[in-house]
Amino acid sequence: MNDKEKDKDKSWATAEDVAKLAGVSRSAVSRAFTPGASISGKTKTLVMQAAERLGYQVDINARNMIQGRSSFVGVVTSGLANPFRVKLLAPLAHYLGEHGFLPILMNADDADQIAHSLQILLSYRIAGVIMTSGAPPLALASEYVNRRIPVAMVNRAAELDGADVVNSDNDAGGRMAAQRLIQSGATRFAFVGPHISNFSGKARCDAFVDALKGLPRRKGDVELCNTSTDSYESGQQAANTLLNRSRGIPDGVFCATDMIALGFIDAVRHRFQKRVPEDIRVVGFDDIQHAGLDSYRLSTVAQNVQELARHTVQVLVERMNDFDTPAQVRVVPVSFVERDTAGPISG
Amino acid sequence: MNDKEKDKDKSWATAEDVAKLAGVSRSAVSRAFTPGASISGKTKTLVMQAAERLGYQVDINARNMIQGRSSFVGVVTSGLANPFRVKLLAPLAHYLGEHGFLPILMNADDADQIAHSLQILLSYRIAGVIMTSGAPPLALASEYVNRRIPVAMVNRAAELDGADVVNSDNDAGGRMAAQRLIQSGATRFAFVGPHISNFSGKARCDAFVDALKGLPRRKGDVELCNTSTDSYESGQQAANTLLNRSRGIPDGVFCATDMIALGFIDAVRHRFQKRVPEDIRVVGFDDIQHAGLDSYRLSTVAQNVQELARHTVQVLVERMNDFDTPAQVRVVPVSFVERDTAGPISG
Repeated sequence: MNDKEKDKDKSWATAEDVAKLAGVSRSAVSRAFTPGASISGKTKTLVMQAAERLGYQVDINARNMIQGRSSFVGVVTSGLANPFRVKLLAPLAHYLGEHGFLPILMNADDADQIAHSLQILLSYRIAGVIMTSGAPPLALASEYVNRRIPVAMVNRAAELDGADVVNSDNDAGGRMAAQRLIQSGATRFAFVGPHISNFSGKARCDAFVDALKGLPRRKGDVELCNTSTDSYESGQQAANTLLNRSRGIPDGVFCATDMIALGFIDAVRHRFQKRVPEDIRVVGFDDIQHAGLDSYRLSTVAQNVQELARHTVQVLVERMNDFDTPAQVRVVPVSFVERDTAGPISG
Repeated sequence: MNDKEKDKDKSWATAEDVAKLAGVSRSAVSRAFTPGASISGKTKTLVMQAAERLGYQVDINARNMIQGRSSFVGVVTSGLANPFRVKLLAPLAHYLGEHGFLPILMNADDADQIAHSLQILLSYRIAGVIMTSGAPPLALASEYVNRRIPVAMVNRAAELDGADVVNSDNDAGGRMAAQRLIQSGATRFAFVGPHISNFSGKARCDAFVDALKGLPRRKGDVELCNTSTDSYESGQQAANTLLNRSRGIPDGVFCATDMIALGFIDAVRHRFQKRVPEDIRVVGFDDIQHAGLDSYRLSTVAQNVQELARHTVQVLVERMNDFDTPAQVRVVPVSFVERDTAGPISG
């Protein structure tokens, strides 16, 4: 037997071999390799040590074939260029792992990938699908639901029967932004973001406008600057719209995302030579890594990615256990992160 | 038959059903669902239309069990907080998809995940593993190689027999940084980065120092400021080291990563009230999204993530076809991105 054959042989040790070496039952070996199964820590250690020595591996593909369902969950995101959606990936992977599931990453920005993703994921008998905000169309989600595959969506409208949704509390966030800008003495307000077509953008905008209703010292209506995307460039363009005029420039601006806020702030400072927060106070939404950089120190409404991910995996697992359970909408609290761009609180 | 049973029935259409409806052979159906298999576009369309109508899905788990190997590739990254490593994910997913493979995301920063990742990935008969730079230890990679699972590594030292490596051209990058700082009239140079323990950091540092050797107008030795990480905070700390003195402050600084450069620049400007590039010229490495923001406009050595990903998938697939092929080290060219922080080129 040459080395190559030996290696091959090693990888085909059976569960019986492991049970014999570990001095446990065959079913103990099986339980040791089943996430969440009942087994003592000591027995599991014995099994794992024996498995390691023999090079034993469960063939989960075989188990999947027998059960008709895999341990994979498709994570469909169109946001690998979007720092907030990337921030969701690690906690999603973590909580999926806690339930014994593995994330298969599907990039919805990649036309080739997304065109085949449905067929591919179905072929793998995936146990569920998570869709984060952005481009993945609802029609794609409904294809999964039609085939009785659980779907959970993050920061999307609850407009698909049979799919659960987990959202940040956009309403509370919009109100926090308004309150904070009022506290800093702003009197002329603007909202910048995709508030027409985008679910989260619209909810944040509506709450912001509502919270400013009837404010006695407010000057003029809240100006709504609709953007086509939630990107840095959209924030820069919005600054051109709002600042290219001699009067009526807003002094309290709420941006629907941090990336929009960064683009807006950079344009205010570097194109219009105005100061943030002295001339214009700015509040963002998300709390991405960039928001904490010293060049920005963006005051913002933070989404709780840990809780968003935990709830998303939880509703997905509940639907795996009972596909016909009524659809849930869960709302995750947000919090205000005080940095510099909202300015000091005035008397 | 109730609705639920009908749905279930629909998902169990056979390949024969599809072949019959499409008016093609059984083997044509099989080829249509095998990535890379020879089949005419017209036949594939007929098969896909019939499959869609019948709700037919290949059970790839079954195919995997028969073949003893899956279509999954583990992507082990410790960099979901690192913008450069995130930038690699989309092209890696894309090129894996072109070869019919799906990425399973494993987060090496997550101790729970990484502890079980080997066992889990082996259980799924993964076809290969890609490790991006950073924390995943070499011992983990060698476990896969020992079990004859192909491993490709990005931006790591080639110190594991049987594993392929794809690196950016750190040597050329370090020289580009030196040349550009010389052109802008710098005379007192420093390198900031993890140049002792980190493979890429050391290579970039060595090339930078070498390119500055014998420069007639150079003042003093190139100062080497070793950092513990490649993060923004490390750049801030390095500024404290290099600027907290009355004389001998460097005027040409090369940072091993863009995140270090951003931290260094922010500290120079906001803590020490000095100007970049007028007082200190700075060059980074990576070309992450942040580098293009107007608050920084960082001049930097760009890594080509598309080419890094393409080569990484290519060497991995070659090793899948022949595990015993000699290990390759491929070097991907870098390019200089001119923005503002290196200052103007002086006479």
